[in-house]
Amino acid sequence: MTTSPIADALRLPAGPVDLTAIETDAKPGFDGKKADGKGALFAMGDELADLQERLWAQRTVGSERRVLLVLQGMDTSGKGGVLRHTIGLVDPQGVRITSFKAPTDEERAHDFLWRIDKGLPPAGYIGVFDRSHYEDVLIARVHDLAEPAEIHRRYGAINDFEARLADSGVAIIKCMLHVGADEQKSRLAARLDNPDKHWKYNPGDLDERASWPAYREAYEIALERTNTDVAPWYVVPADKKWFRNLAVAQLLLDTLRELDPQWPVADFDVEAEKKRLAEESPVQ
Amino acid sequence: MTTSPIADALRLPAGPVDLTAIETDAKPGFDGKKADGKGALFAMGDELADLQERLWAQRTVGSERRVLLVLQGMDTSGKGGVLRHTIGLVDPQGVRITSFKAPTDEERAHDFLWRIDKGLPPAGYIGVFDRSHYEDVLIARVHDLAEPAEIHRRYGAINDFEARLADSGVAIIKCMLHVGADEQKSRLAARLDNPDKHWKYNPGDLDERASWPAYREAYEIALERTNTDVAPWYVVPADKKWFRNLAVAQLLLDTLRELDPQWPVADFDVEAEKKRLAEESPVQ
Repeated sequence: MTTSPIADALRLPAGPVDLTAIETDAKPGFDGKKADGKGALFAMGDELADLQERLWAQRTVGSERRVLLVLQGMDTSGKGGVLRHTIGLVDPQGVRITSFKAPTDEERAHDFLWRIDKGLPPAGYIGVFDRSHYEDVLIARVHDLAEPAEIHRRYGAINDFEARLADSGVAIIKCMLHVGADEQKSRLAARLDNPDKHWKYNPGDLDERASWPAYREAYEIALERTNTDVAPWYVVPADKKWFRNLAVAQLLLDTLRELDPQWPVADFDVEAEKKRLAEESPVQ
Repeated sequence: MTTSPIADALRLPAGPVDLTAIETDAKPGFDGKKADGKGALFAMGDELADLQERLWAQRTVGSERRVLLVLQGMDTSGKGGVLRHTIGLVDPQGVRITSFKAPTDEERAHDFLWRIDKGLPPAGYIGVFDRSHYEDVLIARVHDLAEPAEIHRRYGAINDFEARLADSGVAIIKCMLHVGADEQKSRLAARLDNPDKHWKYNPGDLDERASWPAYREAYEIALERTNTDVAPWYVVPADKKWFRNLAVAQLLLDTLRELDPQWPVADFDVEAEKKRLAEESPVQ
């Protein structure tokens, strides 16, 4: 895949993962400041919209191609911000956002991938997972929501599942929004300081911070075991919101450029239709 | 409802409807030109986004409030343009777009409102119907897809359905995008002239123009019979794309202002949480 400097810099290499070695406030692959980053994001809008419309148009002639952007990250890492600022750049008509909360009783009665399968984007769509099947090897591992053998089974099941998706025309982009513990603390504090943001705060968020090292370990294992060629992981430093938004947009743009969807060729006689239209009886 | 001059001008009065008496290239309620209209639309963005987020926040404390924007109109009237330019102003996370095509076999095996019910926005969302249950009294009437007695039954069924929705917290905005036959002709011609737009053209669109008077009559009857206080119709002149986009945005803004969603009050002890956060053990 032809990639940008940002994608090259964020692509997780094969092998063991040490998240403490990846800076959370960096802006790898981007040589500019905040204002430059915001400008660069804005500048991508037209091309993203054009490529998205071409992808959308392709579905009308039977293409199965679609994009799946998986967003994972700790609380406050900015999944919502990416949806607003990056996904907000493209036509909402062609976007399918699926948010995964704690599974319902019905979902729990099925294999963990059952609800994921149901949440996949149809052909032509850019699908976004706000959390995903990775919760089933992250929170599930940290809080012992499944047996170790089952967690172990899931890494392979995820790889098989994603390989099947890729085979069926899904271009998969997996982003771990990598926020620092100190940055999370200041974001939680900011929510507490502003009454308009209290609804975003949950006392449980603070309890979860006690499990920070366990989550990091769970992420490291998951990232290593599911970092495949067809569904690679990108670790996106997320302390700088503007870089996080820019980086995800760049990954999306790279992916759409690689898909390179073309405008469908007319399956009707264009000249004959022009003639019919020109010669039609007046419409009252 | 406190409304804007545009909403006042577009609100369909009770009684028989004569669509030929409503200009398609007008801009009722707006005293400005294209550039002013685009500026006015852009200027609404922040308030729309703020109100949408408040509506979204309310769902976290159990509010059932939601918005349903119904878009109806002939081919090329600009339903897609409204989705892109107006709905594109708000956070895609809080938007649920449902497009209704020809019903599937499964959908046809149920009452016509079955699939509509399934496509409703959840609490906190702005839902948009790109076509809707009105097709079941429009195309169904024009092309005899149902018996006259069944069509007749549907008007009342729609009113009952929408009254139930309103009772359950759905603020309903129904827009008929009113495009002129000549304007449609020039839009179809433009699609034929541009190979990048051929995918949007379907020879059937031209056949449908022969039924233009029958569609107008079907719209007039449907508009009259389903123009209720809880789910009023707005006829939006749609020859000027900028006015169409502005008008729908204004109707959405009026509706959200009327809902006036407030930021939820914290259901936890804010000061205690601040203290806990400040005093937590360092996260490694």
